[in-house]
Amino acid sequence: MKRPEPIEKMIEAFRLLPGIGPKMAERLSYYVLKAPASVAERLIGSIREARDTVKLCGRCFNVSEIDPCAICSDTERNDSILCVVETPQDLLALSRVKDFNGLYFVLGGALSPLDAVGPDDIRVELLINRLKKDKIRELIIATDTDSKGETTALYLAEQLRPLGLKVTRLGYGLPVGGDLEYADEITLTRAMEGRREI
Amino acid sequence: MKRPEPIEKMIEAFRLLPGIGPKMAERLSYYVLKAPASVAERLIGSIREARDTVKLCGRCFNVSEIDPCAICSDTERNDSILCVVETPQDLLALSRVKDFNGLYFVLGGALSPLDAVGPDDIRVELLINRLKKDKIRELIIATDTDSKGETTALYLAEQLRPLGLKVTRLGYGLPVGGDLEYADEITLTRAMEGRREI
Repeated sequence: MKRPEPIEKMIEAFRLLPGIGPKMAERLSYYVLKAPASVAERLIGSIREARDTVKLCGRCFNVSEIDPCAICSDTERNDSILCVVETPQDLLALSRVKDFNGLYFVLGGALSPLDAVGPDDIRVELLINRLKKDKIRELIIATDTDSKGETTALYLAEQLRPLGLKVTRLGYGLPVGGDLEYADEITLTRAMEGRREI
Repeated sequence: MKRPEPIEKMIEAFRLLPGIGPKMAERLSYYVLKAPASVAERLIGSIREARDTVKLCGRCFNVSEIDPCAICSDTERNDSILCVVETPQDLLALSRVKDFNGLYFVLGGALSPLDAVGPDDIRVELLINRLKKDKIRELIIATDTDSKGETTALYLAEQLRPLGLKVTRLGYGLPVGGDLEYADEITLTRAMEGRREI
């Protein structure tokens, strides 16, 4: 017996999404098929609406319904500090840091030679152009602390050296609320290096 | 900072799907947002098409584009043996068993008192009606071997006793290709009970 072709197609469509394997795609497809119409319509409608209305801010490249976005057009913010992140999700996480009042720049990914993601695939040039044009004193590199994020941070630091501005990286150390026992060796080494008098 | 409302809505829509937690819903939403239009269109189109064209067969309740489905309308099959399964996916798996040439019946779930799923929530009555009407000699209960499936099997066996037909359950034992060392105690006990001369 074969599965009805339309179900097969839906499974294939779900498999295009990240982190969805064959079994999960199958489970989702059968669920969407027999779920109340409202579930399918909400999914379809929300995808359409988001794709139609959410754009990228032309200054920071964060997702936004308006361009420039609310952060970039906020004159109360300190426009001499720019914080570089990989994704809009990272920006959202950082925006909860109350002490930071600067602006952001979303790279749109991280360098990854193994996945063939080079400087031209993320917004390195746009970042450099902005740094040349705007009067930014400090650039905070807040890429992930995995190998791609580290590679990207080192690459950016290297590229930006000629511009002569202050380039910093988020501090490494123990995550707050964590159990020291479960921290990995590298994090512990970095936490030791970054120790501060109390 | 808040996330643009349309993205929030898409995350909520993805969270309605089974096995999708908040982080996964967020990841899928940002992916669908920035993916090529073809990815979003394939997803939307395939959901629409499947929901518009795939129906349930009125005899076995399997998913099908035609009613009755290809299996139920196949006159070559032995219509005196009926195999009961929980879901269309289970039916598909069983259809690969070449030796079985009977018909199927999809219950649409399993009894689960904890989830408030009772006999009226799955197709118990429709099954009994069919068994009363059709000349079926043997009913094979092929529900899952987890506690819900077992409960359902016992309940069905109980309900069907007055009909006086042969009711069987799929054999328990070691899965083929598995390592005995990793089999759980209950499976091993069942395998021991179900041992056969070779």
